[in-house]
Amino acid sequence: MIARELNAIDRLVALLSKLPGIGKKSASRLAYHILDADTSYARSLAEQLESLHEAIKRCSVCGSWTETDPCPICADITRDSRTICVVERAQDVHIIEESREFNGHFHVLGGLIAPLEGISPGDLTIGQLLARVKRNDVREVILAMNPTVEGDTTALYLQKLLKEEGVEVSRLASGLPVGGDLEYTDKLTLSRSFRGRVRMG
Amino acid sequence: MIARELNAIDRLVALLSKLPGIGKKSASRLAYHILDADTSYARSLAEQLESLHEAIKRCSVCGSWTETDPCPICADITRDSRTICVVERAQDVHIIEESREFNGHFHVLGGLIAPLEGISPGDLTIGQLLARVKRNDVREVILAMNPTVEGDTTALYLQKLLKEEGVEVSRLASGLPVGGDLEYTDKLTLSRSFRGRVRMG
Repeated sequence: MIARELNAIDRLVALLSKLPGIGKKSASRLAYHILDADTSYARSLAEQLESLHEAIKRCSVCGSWTETDPCPICADITRDSRTICVVERAQDVHIIEESREFNGHFHVLGGLIAPLEGISPGDLTIGQLLARVKRNDVREVILAMNPTVEGDTTALYLQKLLKEEGVEVSRLASGLPVGGDLEYTDKLTLSRSFRGRVRMG
Repeated sequence: MIARELNAIDRLVALLSKLPGIGKKSASRLAYHILDADTSYARSLAEQLESLHEAIKRCSVCGSWTETDPCPICADITRDSRTICVVERAQDVHIIEESREFNGHFHVLGGLIAPLEGISPGDLTIGQLLARVKRNDVREVILAMNPTVEGDTTALYLQKLLKEEGVEVSRLASGLPVGGDLEYTDKLTLSRSFRGRVRMG
C-alpha cells in the first residue's frame, strides 16, 4: 500500500502544530477547515501573517508591541507617567488594559528571573526600567508578574533595587490564584488585585 | 483613558478566532506566540496559506483533497478498484489511510442526508458514486459514515440504491462509539470496525 502524499496539507499541518496548545489532530482539523472555507479566508490570514512583523514592533520606551513608536500608551499625555506597571510579557499589557483599572505607564521585562532556565537579571530590561524611574521621577512601581516562584523571585529582586531609588514599590494583591496566569484571570479578579495591591518592604 | 489600538494584532486575532475550537483568548495567545516567534515562522505559515487553495484541489474521481488529479489513491493501480469506501468528508480519507486497514478506493459524499438542515440526497455526490459502481464493476461498497442519526439515514439510503445495482454493501462495524466521530477514533478501534464490518440487507 503506497502512503498518500498531500504535501501542501502536510506542510500546513506541521506548521500549525507548532502553535501552543495545538496538537497534530487539532492542526489537521484547522487545516481542513481552512480548505473547506472560502479561499478569501486563507488569503486574508496569509496577508496578516506576512505583514505582521513589519506592522508590529516593540515600543522603544516600554517594550510592548505597537504599530507606532513610542506606543499609544507611552505617547498618551493624559496618562500618569509617574506610575509604572511592570509586566513579564507584552501580552500582559493588553490584558491589564482590558481591565481598565490602570492609567499609568507600562514596562515589559521580557521574562522572569529563572536560574534553572538560565535566565538571569541581565537578560531582562531591568536597566531600562531603572533609567526610566530616574528620568521620569517615578513615584510608584507596581509589580504585576504572575504569582509563581519565578514571579516572586523577580519581584523581590526588583523591589530591592527600586527601594534604593527611593520609589514606592507595590505588587498586585492576592486575588490571582497562586500558580495561575494573568492571561486566564477574569477582569473582576484583576480589578480587585489592583485595588488591594500590597506595599512591599 | 484612551483604549490601546493595535490594529495588526487585532485583525490577526479576529481571523484566528474564526477557526473551529479557537476562542478569543486562544486566538490572542496564538497571535502573541507568532509575534514572539521567529519572523520566518509567520512567513512560512503565510506562504502555505497563500498557496493552499492553488496547490490542493478536489480529485475529480473520488472528491478527496489532492495535489494531482486523479489523486494518488485513485491513480494507484496496486489498489483494489472494485472496493469503494464511502466517507462523509475529505479528511475522513486521511484518517482511514492512517489506519492502513483499507486498500481499495474512496468516495467522498460531501456531507450526510440531513432534512432538518436542508441537505437532501441531491446535494451529495451519490450520482457519481452510482456511476463509478457501474463503470468499474465494483464488488463491494463499504459505508464509513459516522454512527449518528444522519450517518444511519444516509447509509440506509445508499444501501437501498446500491442493492439495486447488485453490489455488496457493508458498513463499518460497531466499535465506533455511538454518537462519536471518526476523527477522534484511535487506529485500533478503527481497524476493528473495518474487520468486523456488517453486511447490510
